Order: sequence, then structure tokens, then C-alpha cells
Amino acid sequence: MAEHLSQSELDYPFKLLEYFNGFRVSKVIFSACELGVFDLLLKAQEPLSAQHVAQELGTSVDGMERLLDALVGIEILEVEKTDGTASYSSTDVANLYLAKGSAKSLHDMIIYQSQTIYPLWNNMVDAVREGKNQNEKTFGLPAEEVFQAIYRSEEEMLKFMGLMNSSWVLDGHDIATAFNLSGFTNIVDLGGCTGALAREVAKAYPASSVTVFDLQQVVETAQKHFSQENDAIIFQAGDFFTGEIPAADLYVLARIIHDWPEEKCLTLLKKIYDICTPGGGILLVEAMLFENRRGPVMAQLFSLNMLVQMEGRERPPSEYTHMLNKTGFHNIQVCRTGKSYDAILAIR
Amino acid sequence: MAEHLSQSELDYPFKLLEYFNGFRVSKVIFSACELGVFDLLLKAQEPLSAQHVAQELGTSVDGMERLLDALVGIEILEVEKTDGTASYSSTDVANLYLAKGSAKSLHDMIIYQSQTIYPLWNNMVDAVREGKNQNEKTFGLPAEEVFQAIYRSEEEMLKFMGLMNSSWVLDGHDIATAFNLSGFTNIVDLGGCTGALAREVAKAYPASSVTVFDLQQVVETAQKHFSQENDAIIFQAGDFFTGEIPAADLYVLARIIHDWPEEKCLTLLKKIYDICTPGGGILLVEAMLFENRRGPVMAQLFSLNMLVQMEGRERPPSEYTHMLNKTGFHNIQVCRTGKSYDAILAIR
Repeated sequence: MAEHLSQSELDYPFKLLEYFNGFRVSKVIFSACELGVFDLLLKAQEPLSAQHVAQELGTSVDGMERLLDALVGIEILEVEKTDGTASYSSTDVANLYLAKGSAKSLHDMIIYQSQTIYPLWNNMVDAVREGKNQNEKTFGLPAEEVFQAIYRSEEEMLKFMGLMNSSWVLDGHDIATAFNLSGFTNIVDLGGCTGALAREVAKAYPASSVTVFDLQQVVETAQKHFSQENDAIIFQAGDFFTGEIPAADLYVLARIIHDWPEEKCLTLLKKIYDICTPGGGILLVEAMLFENRRGPVMAQLFSLNMLVQMEGRERPPSEYTHMLNKTGFHNIQVCRTGKSYDAILAIR
Repeated sequence: MAEHLSQSELDYPFKLLEYFNGFRVSKVIFSACELGVFDLLLKAQEPLSAQHVAQELGTSVDGMERLLDALVGIEILEVEKTDGTASYSSTDVANLYLAKGSAKSLHDMIIYQSQTIYPLWNNMVDAVREGKNQNEKTFGLPAEEVFQAIYRSEEEMLKFMGLMNSSWVLDGHDIATAFNLSGFTNIVDLGGCTGALAREVAKAYPASSVTVFDLQQVVETAQKHFSQENDAIIFQAGDFFTGEIPAADLYVLARIIHDWPEEKCLTLLKKIYDICTPGGGILLVEAMLFENRRGPVMAQLFSLNMLVQMEGRERPPSEYTHMLNKTGFHNIQVCRTGKSYDAILAIR
């Protein structure tokens, strides 16, 4: 692959220039999302002029026209020209993933990336230099106590929970069915946030009881903003680092281990091992690196994200296996889903 | 194309997630450039460990390792593992375009994009809302007098000039040879900055005299930092808006028209028309939009860039033709190069 890129790029670096434009493409989509473009086009059910969109959303016509045109260029919107006026309409992809109301909406993921992650990455040079997160430089927040930074206000907490919720809307089903978990009757999702993944697990294993365990304020916010009628899951409040962990025969840790350095992970895994029913298990869910360091690109980028925002990193399966073995777990199985997140199951 | 994206994306939005990661990929390359990774690997002439690179460049090993791995993932670097240690080496593409010393280096373009354009785009929502640049919100600089903002210090001026210089290193030859300009003996590049494009013109038409005309301070900085031995071009200082324009039979305006609103462009074009030798010409160089609004994506993104930083926009050929006709120019020919910048030639 690298040879392929090199050879074709030497005459003119088209791909390199596309990489340089990457931040612009991200911000085109993010900005349209923040301004409500996709929601308006979905609601309208007919093509709209730039002027119409600008008026409805309270923006300049000129700026909106350029934004809409760029969205056409990257194939997120469609345009047709009749009588000299351009009319813009949505695509199935935009309606499904970018509009706010859709069941598969990534709207909240986008807001968080645009408003929190994008500015953090502006300090990546310092993150690499110092080997630590840039919450202080970017937002004036302490570099330690990363979750105090993330949860610094109800608004920020909601944004972060929205991000988490979106990603399990996408990958939750694949994760829940990566292994046959029907043998586990009492499943606890530690740090389960809004319950999006837990709901997918409950749907896949209706005979099992599924509990989301998270901090008091997270549980309250989840129940207030992300609850569902006849919810198949239970919420329980607590701190898995400082408090007691509820008894269960399967513990799910989805994007928890990647937040922390190895020592802290080992302490947590040992604590889970000690409370876990013999024959019970642990399911780690993470974006896993290849052992050969060549990818997946998304996991590599996420690992830099952990550097600039948290205290942890993404890891290859061998490092999770090493930690699980060290804690006492065995029968370790790895499942790569081919999507963003992968799963590892281990038995006590 | 749009249908194609829609259909394959509905099951799982791989392309959309790639777009969301665009800013991360940009910043991976930009950060490596700022830290000097490509220069070190070129100089080393042999694969280096992350530890070695980190030590030489004064960064954390952990952060550098993640950055190097991501560069491998996007095929900018190579990695090989021997005796458990990963060693990273450069590719031809990185050596040619990303290392600082190379004749085709885009290093200065990257620095400007990373440190100036990336933060500006964080305020794109406001730019679209207000229909004007975000120099004030981003850098505390006045929204009017955009070049006073860009040239606010010698350091900033140098950065901007480096950006301009890089792009003509890439596209200069294609632009100089887009039309046969050998009939023009006295060529003036208005706002010619470092002279990078003018040098390509002088190389292509050695019998012609080529002059770069730019602001006093730009000319001084160009001569101090970007001059070449036996330079084939002449520099002349002046302000083409407020002062006199030197006589010539061909005027080049490369990325000048796109900075300004139509009225200001028409004033400038009329001024050029009046001084231009009859039978002489004008060469406009810009990233030109398609008439159907569907692309090129790069020109659409540049147009949003003009919104967030300047007072102008990118335009389709018809708008340049309209302005040129209105001023009195005729015999208008358009040449699309297929690269970033295109050219329009018109005759007085």
C-alpha cells in the first residue's frame, strides 16, 4: 500500500493535498450539523434554495451557499439547477446519520468532535512533546482528573454522553453479537454511560439481566435524557475505582481500559476478577490496533486522541491479553468486527 | 457519484467516519512536520526507533510512537520490526514534499495551514452565520484590512509568503505553460509575493522580462528570504490598489481576485485595462469552480477558506469572464490544469 501511494504521488501529491484538506472536510460536515442544515432539509421534504436555507437557519446567504456547495462536492447533499436557481436536497446518508432525529443519528458525536476534539487536536504538537493531555492549554482545565474536565458542567456531560451514545448506535449490535453471551445471566456494563450498548446486549440476550453501572451524576443524566419507555436495562450508581462493584457473571468494559495507564487498568481488572463469579467473564470493547503497528488508521488516530485528551491509549490484542492473563483471566478470545470497535472475551 | 456514496454508506458509514477523522489525519501530518520528523528521517538515511526520534526531537517517546504509527497507517512512513523493536523510515513522498529542505517542499504550506487556517476553521459556523471572516474571533485581529492581519508581524508575513511560495513550487510550471505566453515581452506579476510563480514564467519564456510587483515590505522580505542567485526576475515595490501599476503587455494576477468582493475586483481590472498595452493581456490564476456547482471539492473548500479569512470567494470561469468582459477585455480563454489552480487568459 505504501509503495502504491508513493509511486502515484511523486508526480503530483493529490492524496497528500487531500490529507491537508481533511480538517476542512470535517468542519464542512460539522458546521452544517451545528447549523441544522440536515434537519431542515429532512423536514422540508423538497429541494431548497441557499437563500431559503439561510433564512430558515439565520445565516448569511453567501456563506450558506458555499457550505451547501461543498457538501454537494463531498456527496453529502444533491443539487439541481432549474431556471438558474440551485436547489439543494438531502441524501439517504445525510437523513440517516446526520439529521438529529434519526434513530442512527451521529449528530451528538459530531457536536462533540467539532467543539471539543477539534480544538484539542490543535495542541497535538504539545501533546506529543509532553506526552500528556492538553485539557489545560485548550480549555484551562486541569490535566489530571480527566473526567472532572469532561463532566465539568451538565452541558458538557450531556455532550460527552451524546458522543458515547452515538457510537453504540452504530457499533452496538456488532459488539453485542461478537460472541455468544447467552450463557451469562447477570451482565453489568461498567461505565455504561447512557446505556446504548447495554440496550443492544439486552436485545440480543433477552433472558439476561443487564445493568448499567456508572457515576451517580451520569446515571441521573442518563435517566433524565436518554431513558426509553419499557427500558430493558437497569441503572445502578457507583464508582468502580473507589467503591464496590456489583456482583455479576459478565462484566462489560467498553472504552474504559483505553482511558487509563496500564497500572490503573490492572488494578481495575483485578478488582473485577475478585468479584466475578467463577466461570463468569469479562468483555473488553475497544478499537484494537494491529500487532504489526500498520493500522487500523482509525485506532491509531483514536490512540492519539487518548494522548491529547485522556491518560490512556489504544492497544493491540496482545496487550489486553497480557493484562487479562496477569490478572488471572483465561480462555481469551479476540473478535475483530471490521467496524470501529472490536471485542475480547475472557473467562474467570 | 452521490448515489454511489449513499448506497454503500447506508449499511455502515465508513466514508462518513473517514470524513469525521479528516481533521485528525491533517493534524497528524502537520504535527510531524512541525516537530521535524520528516527532516530527521531524511537526514538519518536509515530506519530509526521511536525512542531515537523522540530523543533527537525532544518529545515524549510514547507520543512520538503513536504519531509515527499513525503516519505508517496513512502510508506516509514505513515501519519494520526487527528483534521486537519497530524502526521507522521515510517514503519518497515524505522526502520530496514534507521534508523542509527539498526543492518541492510543502513544509511552509503545512505550517501555515496548521497554525493559522486550522484555528480559523474552528469558527466556520460563525463565518457562515455572519458571512464574514473570523480573524477577530480567532486571533483578536480586525475583520477589515485582511492583509494588515496577515502581515501583522515579520514572522506572520514570512509564514504567509512561505505558503504562497509552496503552492507555486507545485503548480507554477503548469500555470506558466497553460497558454503560450511567448508573445508577451514584458510580464508583470501583480502581488507576485516571493516570485515563485514569476520564476516559472521566466523559465518558460526566457526571452521575456518578468517583474514581481508587490508591497514594499513584501518585496523586502522576498529579497531577504526567498531570493535566488542569478535570479531571472526583477522586484518592484508598490500598491496596485492605491498606487501606480507599471506598464507591461501581460499582467499576471495569481490568487488576487479571489481575495476581494466583485466591486473591488472590477476597479482593479479596469485599472489594469487602462495601463495595459493594446494587444497585451491579463492572466488570472485561481482554483476555479465548476459551473454546475458540483466541484472541484478543493475549490469549494478554498471558497469557504476565503469566507473565514478574507473578503472574497472562489468563482466559476463564467464569473471571471463576466468581470473581464465588463472591464473591456476580450478573446477570453480558460485552461483547467486538472491540478489545484487554473488559468484564464484575456486580451486588451
